[in-house]
Amino acid sequence: MTTDVFTHPWLGGLFGDTEAEAIWFPDRQIAHMLRVEAAYTRALGRVGTVPQEQATRAARVIEVFDPDIDALRRASARDGLPVPDLVRQIKDAVGADAEAVHAGMTSQDVLDTALTLTLHEINRLLSERLSSLSTALADLTDRYGDVQIMGRTRMQAALPIAFAQRASGWSAPVAAHAARLASLRPSVECLQLGGPVGDRATLGPQADAIASDMAAQLGLSNPPAAWHTQREGLADYAGLLSLMTGTLGKMGQDICLMAQQGIDEVQISGGGGSSAMPHKQNPVLAELLVTLARFNATQVSAVHHALVHEQDRSGAAWALEWMILPQMTKATARSLAAARDLCDRITVTSGRARN
Amino acid sequence: MTTDVFTHPWLGGLFGDTEAEAIWFPDRQIAHMLRVEAAYTRALGRVGTVPQEQATRAARVIEVFDPDIDALRRASARDGLPVPDLVRQIKDAVGADAEAVHAGMTSQDVLDTALTLTLHEINRLLSERLSSLSTALADLTDRYGDVQIMGRTRMQAALPIAFAQRASGWSAPVAAHAARLASLRPSVECLQLGGPVGDRATLGPQADAIASDMAAQLGLSNPPAAWHTQREGLADYAGLLSLMTGTLGKMGQDICLMAQQGIDEVQISGGGGSSAMPHKQNPVLAELLVTLARFNATQVSAVHHALVHEQDRSGAAWALEWMILPQMTKATARSLAAARDLCDRITVTSGRARN
Amino acid sequence: MTTDVFTHPWLGGLFGDTEAEAIWFPDRQIAHMLRVEAAYTRALGRVGTVPQEQATRAARVIEVFDPDIDALRRASARDGLPVPDLVRQIKDAVGADAEAVHAGMTSQDVLDTALTLTLHEINRLLSERLSSLSTALADLTDRYGDVQIMGRTRMQAALPIAFAQRASGWSAPVAAHAARLASLRPSVECLQLGGPVGDRATLGPQADAIASDMAAQLGLSNPPAAWHTQREGLADYAGLLSLMTGTLGKMGQDICLMAQQGIDEVQISGGGGSSAMPHKQNPVLAELLVTLARFNATQVSAVHHALVHEQDRSGAAWALEWMILPQMTKATARSLAAARDLCDRITVTSGRARN
Amino acid sequence: MTTDVFTHPWLGGLFGDTEAEAIWFPDRQIAHMLRVEAAYTRALGRVGTVPQEQATRAARVIEVFDPDIDALRRASARDGLPVPDLVRQIKDAVGADAEAVHAGMTSQDVLDTALTLTLHEINRLLSERLSSLSTALADLTDRYGDVQIMGRTRMQAALPIAFAQRASGWSAPVAAHAARLASLRPSVECLQLGGPVGDRATLGPQADAIASDMAAQLGLSNPPAAWHTQREGLADYAGLLSLMTGTLGKMGQDICLMAQQGIDEVQISGGGGSSAMPHKQNPVLAELLVTLARFNATQVSAVHHALVHEQDRSGAAWALEWMILPQMTKATARSLAAARDLCDRITVTSGRARN
Repeated sequence: MTTDVFTHPWLGGLFGDTEAEAIWFPDRQIAHMLRVEAAYTRALGRVGTVPQEQATRAARVIEVFDPDIDALRRASARDGLPVPDLVRQIKDAVGADAEAVHAGMTSQDVLDTALTLTLHEINRLLSERLSSLSTALADLTDRYGDVQIMGRTRMQAALPIAFAQRASGWSAPVAAHAARLASLRPSVECLQLGGPVGDRATLGPQADAIASDMAAQLGLSNPPAAWHTQREGLADYAGLLSLMTGTLGKMGQDICLMAQQGIDEVQISGGGGSSAMPHKQNPVLAELLVTLARFNATQVSAVHHALVHEQDRSGAAWALEWMILPQMTKATARSLAAARDLCDRITVTSGRARN
Repeated sequence: MTTDVFTHPWLGGLFGDTEAEAIWFPDRQIAHMLRVEAAYTRALGRVGTVPQEQATRAARVIEVFDPDIDALRRASARDGLPVPDLVRQIKDAVGADAEAVHAGMTSQDVLDTALTLTLHEINRLLSERLSSLSTALADLTDRYGDVQIMGRTRMQAALPIAFAQRASGWSAPVAAHAARLASLRPSVECLQLGGPVGDRATLGPQADAIASDMAAQLGLSNPPAAWHTQREGLADYAGLLSLMTGTLGKMGQDICLMAQQGIDEVQISGGGGSSAMPHKQNPVLAELLVTLARFNATQVSAVHHALVHEQDRSGAAWALEWMILPQMTKATARSLAAARDLCDRITVTSGRARN
Repeated sequence: MTTDVFTHPWLGGLFGDTEAEAIWFPDRQIAHMLRVEAAYTRALGRVGTVPQEQATRAARVIEVFDPDIDALRRASARDGLPVPDLVRQIKDAVGADAEAVHAGMTSQDVLDTALTLTLHEINRLLSERLSSLSTALADLTDRYGDVQIMGRTRMQAALPIAFAQRASGWSAPVAAHAARLASLRPSVECLQLGGPVGDRATLGPQADAIASDMAAQLGLSNPPAAWHTQREGLADYAGLLSLMTGTLGKMGQDICLMAQQGIDEVQISGGGGSSAMPHKQNPVLAELLVTLARFNATQVSAVHHALVHEQDRSGAAWALEWMILPQMTKATARSLAAARDLCDRITVTSGRARN
Repeated sequence: MTTDVFTHPWLGGLFGDTEAEAIWFPDRQIAHMLRVEAAYTRALGRVGTVPQEQATRAARVIEVFDPDIDALRRASARDGLPVPDLVRQIKDAVGADAEAVHAGMTSQDVLDTALTLTLHEINRLLSERLSSLSTALADLTDRYGDVQIMGRTRMQAALPIAFAQRASGWSAPVAAHAARLASLRPSVECLQLGGPVGDRATLGPQADAIASDMAAQLGLSNPPAAWHTQREGLADYAGLLSLMTGTLGKMGQDICLMAQQGIDEVQISGGGGSSAMPHKQNPVLAELLVTLARFNATQVSAVHHALVHEQDRSGAAWALEWMILPQMTKATARSLAAARDLCDRITVTSGRARN
């Protein structure tokens, strides 16, 4: 049992997202790291840096390797990351073919590329959810778009509007986010390959060919050079995640306000109960959207601070990303699912629009 | 005399940017608001909502109107914004043609569109500076690209690299920011027109024609609907500003580290003096880049919080943008200028790369 | 297996803290919730709201109750929190004495008070670690205080200083934090008791006596009223956590800078290895201190946003605290332990102070 | 004319605070710097470092010195701060007694101590306003405390409460902030004196006597050593400012919610008008309280990042404080004044509590 809200035994019921969690599952992270190491080894064989049969043999061992996690944990405590020890373990397993393993790469190549493989899966999930949410919002508008509610500005009754108008402030950005995510994916789902100091010098004259081969194997885009110190792509991506939760935070806030007694423009089915007041129907999911928006709006700042990535690898700035990015993706996935769920649960009426 | 760092009588020498400051100058903001009102009035005439001659007469008065600023100040204290009183003043000046003024629009249409006119000018400035900085970084690389310096990872000497490698971590993102800014401009330099509750109902059947005409007059893009509650474009833009300063914060941090005695890879001419130690040459501009990066990395969070823009206009979330966005643009403009300046001042040597 | 950095199977080796993690363990959170419910039930008996024997019988059942966690999870998804279902489960277990259970209290009374019981344990841990770190810093100063290093201002060599001077910038705040924590503890380790809307009306005329009795049972301070919407104590506490990690971030940054080749004022034993460069000794723990400082400096913002806790209970603002506060305490505990560890590992020399 | 919201020609009507602005007025900052220099010079005379008559003559010149601000501006651009040039100007003015000027001090001693003199004045203002607001909240409770309103939890009607209960969530923290400010003042209103690298070595054997004399002259507390790299006091102070605006943000949010049509528990006189809907009474001041709360909740993060103040003076971290702290104090002063104003303008009724 653990204690972050996403995997927490009971709070996870509210905050957790099974699919997003599965994508970040450590076993899957290990699998991604091994895929990167194997792709590198195979690429070394194809470009002729090592004999192809040797590369193939080594890659096959890597692909099914089952690392000693406790050793990785001890090594992470010492080295700040698991890769040096993982490579040691792999080389032991590979035996005589060890020279086809990792030589010329660096830890960051492995971890960053494994991250982009994870983000590839996350983005597929987010993309599906954006699409599903768009549909749900369109359905909601079909059902209730013509209902006249009170337009409210500065929290005061202004003029009546159609519910479709209010809801367009939720759905239009969702559609825009889907388009933006699609266009941004190549710049985050991309190979990292630079070697110890990022200049690919240790990869030899075939460095670019190796990169090209690896990117093809892994289904990633192949940038012209390593981006090990250029974290702008990740920060921009974190910004997009927070834009998504921000949009849905607005939706959640609107629904909370519409559900107030005295306003009564929204009824939510399956709302939350109270330990003291059984008559209440709390807008739990709508509030959750607000919480997740403010969570991501805070976290995005840390990823921007991590842009100050000194010299040729910053242990401090890099590790800050590790603390923040997974949580932001989970919060976003959960927000999209909760918004989708909420669409099915709300009924819109004119309430007291005459006020 | 005032006290924010950008316009401060002496700190402004360090933080201030004459061109950015001029763009945000209140007189220019007034001019933008009047341009918006006049464009609206002319559009009303063209689509036939009011007689064209009446519209022309009124627009001519608006365009040269000189508002009572003290009255705007008192009105802002009362109303939370200057537009209702500005409209009152304009109508008084226009006299018999007052029905061609503002009718059907709302304050937010004026302020948001005036903002996008300001951002149009800011973006032109940033675009020029990104281009100029790219040139300066290319020159710097021409001069010193082959100098061997020590590659440093996790703040420890790793392997020697060419200075070109270190500098590519500064220049590649700068080029990317220029491209991103160009593609993002239409989504922030765009007309806001929605009327009191954003649905264009008060603009009548010609609403879309009015919008199209106004956008053409003002040189802005013409989105299909009002975005008064959809602040994602501004938050994305704020993110880009912080990406820019983040890149330059990394550059500044790198230069500070290279300039350390004992490392001695960079010498900076015209560096800052000390009141106690005349021998020192402080890397003032390089430190400034770090400061501005952390400033924007913090501020970007507020703009994301402002996405939770409740109902059909949030006075609270909107005003938060006013507090933050101008400062972010100024910090970014200053950062670009300081980085440009720094490029001309630094000399790169191999220092103690043998360490 | 899970994926936040604190409990992650391998990253937990770097970020995780066994003792802090144990304090936040869900079983312990359940135990705290049951302690609160039992204390309330016993208090009801003592003040005569229910017969004392009934209260005693019910409390005994509560104290050893083993809840159905899966049901709590489903309920949290629905209700936004686990208490209503926990109370239902308890009442089922208590049977005929159910009227002595929870009646008059509300979910927030249980969760907030359980939180303060957790923070009581966290604070004891932090207090011990601050004390231990103070001792280690004093020892470090004893060993190396007289070593002359180069004082550096604005990242430039200034004048030589004793290492004791540099280290006083680490140790003096640590001592101050210990004093501040001691004085702040009563304002966070305090009973929450207010009933559904916080006014203790449902607790009847004996409300204050119940509160006094509960606080005494639980070893908590007894504030004069419920603080359910007044989150200033928690935000102030979060600020103190970030002050602690900030101090240690400065220490870590200083040590990273002193350990640079070319400066060579600090050697770190047991430093981290590299997958590509076996000769390196990376200052992993020092970098971690910087990471944790920037993590908490970001998170503290969210807790301040949560002060805008609308009306008489904000589901949105409250849940934001749940996402943030546990992580901040863990980051702080880890930072204190890492700083302590680092003290034993560093050797200070004059390096190249002559520069 | 300038463009930050506090001093802006029309937005300043909403955001600006005449008294807080006056405290930060550059002329007053100059006066504080000169006070610090003069106090230092007099102290040098009293402890015998320079002849007392020389010190007195020099101090008299300093106290009435009128610096060349343009030169300070050019110098700030070059040196990152105005003090080296200010000292040069002063020495020119003092002439033969120049050795009694600044010798042994450093720029940071002057700027930090001048800051604490400013904060002394700010704190006096905040203290008065907290007291005045407490009185206004007590009056408000006297007037309307017994009015029954609907207690609302999770934005849903729960049980009726007295307005006094809602208002206690505003007033109790205000009283606590006043007490906390009083206890915290000595730790921020304190002398900074350390010399170039903070160890007071350049101040000679009389360093502590000089410090003691200066503190007494300036009415500041006298800490045992320089705190030039220990910014915890300022960060803690920034946290308190944000606690204050956070409390009032909750009050503002509550009032906005109570003023909604359909709830109708609060009427606000003198509320803001709309350019499109003359019938509206917008809760401008209440929204402003929310805006200022979120502003400070964001800014506080930057001050915590500035704790990572490397080595013996960080130009980067220090300048970040200059960008943030003045704004936070102004936002806080304005928030307190707006809350006070709002107390006089609201009428509380039972509204639709029966809902």
